[in-house]
Amino acid sequence: MRAMVSPAASPDLDRLWAVVPAGGAGTRLWPLSRARTPKFLLDLTGGGRTLIQATVDRLAPLVGDRVVVVTGTAHEQAVRRQLPSVARVLAEPSPRDSMAAIGLAAAELELQDPDALIGSFAADHLITDEESFAASVREAASLAADGWLVTIGIEPSAPSTGFGYIRAGDPMPGFATARAVREFVEKPDLERAKAYVASGEYRWNAGMFLARASVLLDLLAEQHPDLAAGLRAIAADPSTLEARWPGLTRIAIDHAVAEPAAAAGKVAVVPGPFGWEDVGDFAALATLTPGDDDGVRVVGDEALVVAAGSTGLVMPSAGRTVAVVGLEDVVVVDTGDALLVTTYDKAQDVKAVVDELRRRGRTDLT
Amino acid sequence: MRAMVSPAASPDLDRLWAVVPAGGAGTRLWPLSRARTPKFLLDLTGGGRTLIQATVDRLAPLVGDRVVVVTGTAHEQAVRRQLPSVARVLAEPSPRDSMAAIGLAAAELELQDPDALIGSFAADHLITDEESFAASVREAASLAADGWLVTIGIEPSAPSTGFGYIRAGDPMPGFATARAVREFVEKPDLERAKAYVASGEYRWNAGMFLARASVLLDLLAEQHPDLAAGLRAIAADPSTLEARWPGLTRIAIDHAVAEPAAAAGKVAVVPGPFGWEDVGDFAALATLTPGDDDGVRVVGDEALVVAAGSTGLVMPSAGRTVAVVGLEDVVVVDTGDALLVTTYDKAQDVKAVVDELRRRGRTDLT
Repeated sequence: MRAMVSPAASPDLDRLWAVVPAGGAGTRLWPLSRARTPKFLLDLTGGGRTLIQATVDRLAPLVGDRVVVVTGTAHEQAVRRQLPSVARVLAEPSPRDSMAAIGLAAAELELQDPDALIGSFAADHLITDEESFAASVREAASLAADGWLVTIGIEPSAPSTGFGYIRAGDPMPGFATARAVREFVEKPDLERAKAYVASGEYRWNAGMFLARASVLLDLLAEQHPDLAAGLRAIAADPSTLEARWPGLTRIAIDHAVAEPAAAAGKVAVVPGPFGWEDVGDFAALATLTPGDDDGVRVVGDEALVVAAGSTGLVMPSAGRTVAVVGLEDVVVVDTGDALLVTTYDKAQDVKAVVDELRRRGRTDLT
Repeated sequence: MRAMVSPAASPDLDRLWAVVPAGGAGTRLWPLSRARTPKFLLDLTGGGRTLIQATVDRLAPLVGDRVVVVTGTAHEQAVRRQLPSVARVLAEPSPRDSMAAIGLAAAELELQDPDALIGSFAADHLITDEESFAASVREAASLAADGWLVTIGIEPSAPSTGFGYIRAGDPMPGFATARAVREFVEKPDLERAKAYVASGEYRWNAGMFLARASVLLDLLAEQHPDLAAGLRAIAADPSTLEARWPGLTRIAIDHAVAEPAAAAGKVAVVPGPFGWEDVGDFAALATLTPGDDDGVRVVGDEALVVAAGSTGLVMPSAGRTVAVVGLEDVVVVDTGDALLVTTYDKAQDVKAVVDELRRRGRTDLT
């Protein structure tokens, strides 16, 4: 057992690499998000930084330039343009889900430094309290250095049915806030989600995993030996990437490693008390946008918006004037070639528009 | 007393001139209507003809090229471009309301032909049954030739509070449908409007007046001798238009002539059983747009619209794709520099947007 680790003292951070998987289109954020400009490349809040830039900004005080972004070939150039300070951008030839993406980075880093720690942090989430986030990462890094697979579990602010949950067990002796993980559970229905939140034992699974690179790959090897071997072989000879990649098992890191390791008592959770948002749709974005409930919230140039007797979210991103009269909880997103009008309640259904446009062959718009 | 006039035989039509006052911005149809492109210059229904073109098309079988358009100087060129077959376009130096506009045309025509009949037909109304309209005009022209001031009164389809009403009296002997006018009444409240419609005695006042030009001006001279004299003086010497115009009384033809003449028993009404619509706002436009109540109605290119779980009116006039998800009775009007989102219920409040934009000095948008 090690001494209590305070957030300020964290020698383990010096060995931590941040792995940022940058995938996923964010279909529910159409027409802002497109196949060519997915969610992580967008400045959704109008704050001047895209989601992936904000992610790297947030990690820089913790890991310096030890950042690896894993993205699709289609977005490699855009990622490099947005992140000139990030030297390591791994391009996946095709999407093989999160285990292959994170595992490839882990295999490269394991070769480079057998003691390397890695932490995965999605490219398209927002975190509002960065100091609290840093404290959680420091504690998680110490646990990872001790050989644990560690996840940072978000304290639920509502009984969401859109996230998986992590069920915490006993406190981890010697650590400030960490607890053992009893199990990972899938997205629940509302009743179950309410029970989870009421119990105080559950955290949201935000896909943040920290471990020694070698521990992660060894855990993977126990469950999916071919996948672990394939990733290590690619790391050993990068020229085989194109040939090996399509044969890799397509599986999420949660199923591949986290769930079986939790069952084996090898996973710890550090509670994340910071504000966190995956910005899954425009209703979520509205909650992040300043404004009051008597009027519309504007992301972008407020001078372009005229609202009368209306509430909701307006994004006048095409530079045109947007007038809204007499609508409640409306969402208006204006872009150069497409316009969306919906409501907070229906924000999840925006995906249907993208499906319909694809059916019509409008790849130019999706 | 004259013989019954059938709609087919109408020698009086040969002396009838259509006077088309083309004014009014149609503020509630922003962002389609602007100061520079008012309602009458727009093809609101997407049928390929603007409202003023449709008005002249509708009159051509009745009056041939005997059409005078009276419009503001700002719109004279646009009117001439849209109506190359109309030789007579009178440009008002400034808006002086409908009596001056119609009276100026009447004074010119009276000079040209002392027996001339004139009929005023607004430039921005829609009529769906043109044969029925023609029959009403023929009967009204015969009454006008006999010296009556004649109005064509629309059969109310609902207890509208947006129009003035005409109260009909006894049938006019020798005419198919005409009745004497007992009075013109102002826009009523809803309760009164319901009583008007229930009585069967009332018609909407759509501003259609027919009379001998000389009768109209003589009636005006009884009430507003300076205005009648001023108009006749301008007609006698058009070079005095600029000097005399600003001094003319600003008054509507209803107040100036129709109401006092009705009180004196000099007005007849021909009931207009044809479909008529003044297209005052987008809710009115929606009723004119084909479609069913389970989806959105589209004016323009339907291929540009994606709607899911929505009803309402969508006008994608900027060529961009418009997606609407989960809204009822929504109105979305997309133009190159401005976008409006509202509902049928709030369509009247669009005027507030225009007021706000003017307050902000955005004359480019209004």
